[in-house]
Amino acid sequence: MQLDSNQWNLVYNVFSFGLVSMLACTIYTLVSQQRVLAKYRNALVMSSMVTFIAGYHYLRIFDSFKHASEGGKVLLDGSQNSFNEAYRYVDWLLTVPLLLVEVIAVLALAKEVSRSLITRLVPASAAMIALGYPGEISSDQNTQVMYGVLSTLPFIYILYVLFVELGKSLERQPAGVAETVGRLRLLLIATWGVYPIAYIFNIVGDASSSSFVTVQVGYTIADVLAKCVFGLTILKIARMKSMAEGMKDDH
Amino acid sequence: MQLDSNQWNLVYNVFSFGLVSMLACTIYTLVSQQRVLAKYRNALVMSSMVTFIAGYHYLRIFDSFKHASEGGKVLLDGSQNSFNEAYRYVDWLLTVPLLLVEVIAVLALAKEVSRSLITRLVPASAAMIALGYPGEISSDQNTQVMYGVLSTLPFIYILYVLFVELGKSLERQPAGVAETVGRLRLLLIATWGVYPIAYIFNIVGDASSSSFVTVQVGYTIADVLAKCVFGLTILKIARMKSMAEGMKDDH
Repeated sequence: MQLDSNQWNLVYNVFSFGLVSMLACTIYTLVSQQRVLAKYRNALVMSSMVTFIAGYHYLRIFDSFKHASEGGKVLLDGSQNSFNEAYRYVDWLLTVPLLLVEVIAVLALAKEVSRSLITRLVPASAAMIALGYPGEISSDQNTQVMYGVLSTLPFIYILYVLFVELGKSLERQPAGVAETVGRLRLLLIATWGVYPIAYIFNIVGDASSSSFVTVQVGYTIADVLAKCVFGLTILKIARMKSMAEGMKDDH
Repeated sequence: MQLDSNQWNLVYNVFSFGLVSMLACTIYTLVSQQRVLAKYRNALVMSSMVTFIAGYHYLRIFDSFKHASEGGKVLLDGSQNSFNEAYRYVDWLLTVPLLLVEVIAVLALAKEVSRSLITRLVPASAAMIALGYPGEISSDQNTQVMYGVLSTLPFIYILYVLFVELGKSLERQPAGVAETVGRLRLLLIATWGVYPIAYIFNIVGDASSSSFVTVQVGYTIADVLAKCVFGLTILKIARMKSMAEGMKDDH
């Protein structure tokens, strides 16, 4: 894939932006733990782990892109020295279930409710990612469509659990929390929407350099929203709940 | 060993997955110490050390695999530039005894019981690993079988100590702890079972690329289960015990 120098530099710098955003967010959520009550700290730690894992993968993606390129030409043939897109799947396999657990953890629901939500969301989200991968690496259009459809089924189930099941628990949350969780849920759906769009783009789109650039920039912005902005929203919810439960607003 | 590009990429990405899982788990157990009573924190620190040591070795294994490969051909002849499988043995020599000490530490048994279990489990587990190594590097089938059998003897002794001796101590644990320790012990046996299977696979199996891929992927998944999932289970047990001893469930 031959990129012109503007395209190549855009992708390179967007990867670097993704990397440093994840690292900064990791440290921020780690050192902010004292600002929330003890019961909400685990949600913050999980957010740190999500951005830590994503930071690791952006470091690898950044290096892989650099080493797979020569004069703006990026090697994409799956050979040893080509750009390794699979880092994204390994990342999602770990971070997507963690993001869902993070939402449940910050709500501090009753133990049996938490457990029931987690035991349904975690396998569903892992299945969603794992089923997407064979389609991503295949070059056969029917296989791509089949795994695209298969991967959509757990995605719809996750939407059902988040909007219908989780919705019931939001009524008992302090003022403002339900609205923020609602926004968090929309953020999650909006950013996760980027991934199937990019997937369809790969199937029907032309193999042009501008498609490649659009997909890489789109993935990176979606990752920063779905992990960093998401984590900062989790911190905000944890602080709202901590204050509703009597923590002094001087932290 | 010539791998096709899917095989090479699978092994490469599985190593990267192992590496980042170990690192994330190390940080998670380190920062979660305040969530358990002080007497259980050493078990968590040991779990961090196990995943830290394993993370180091996965970094080395990942780099070694990359540098020993050229166009999907992996050098395995034991020369200076070949893939260094011995990192796994160094890793196990350190982490396997630590994992066993971790189990004993989280149970907080009477001092003399702990000491007696540790002085038997640590030498047995070190002997198990050390006796496997000469068989692993040998290319003579009789030598391989001999060291395989020798290494199995301490393994059986460890099973005896864990199931019979440790079993007696579990009766005095708080509700739920005995079941979780039981599951932990099964996790340990199930994942440790992968190593002798891979060892036998090396002796009787063909030297095909798919055997190589199966063994590497199998080892990595077993390591993630035996170290990360194991460590998170140790954290769960430590929390159950902390709460049974009066720690407030708000952490």
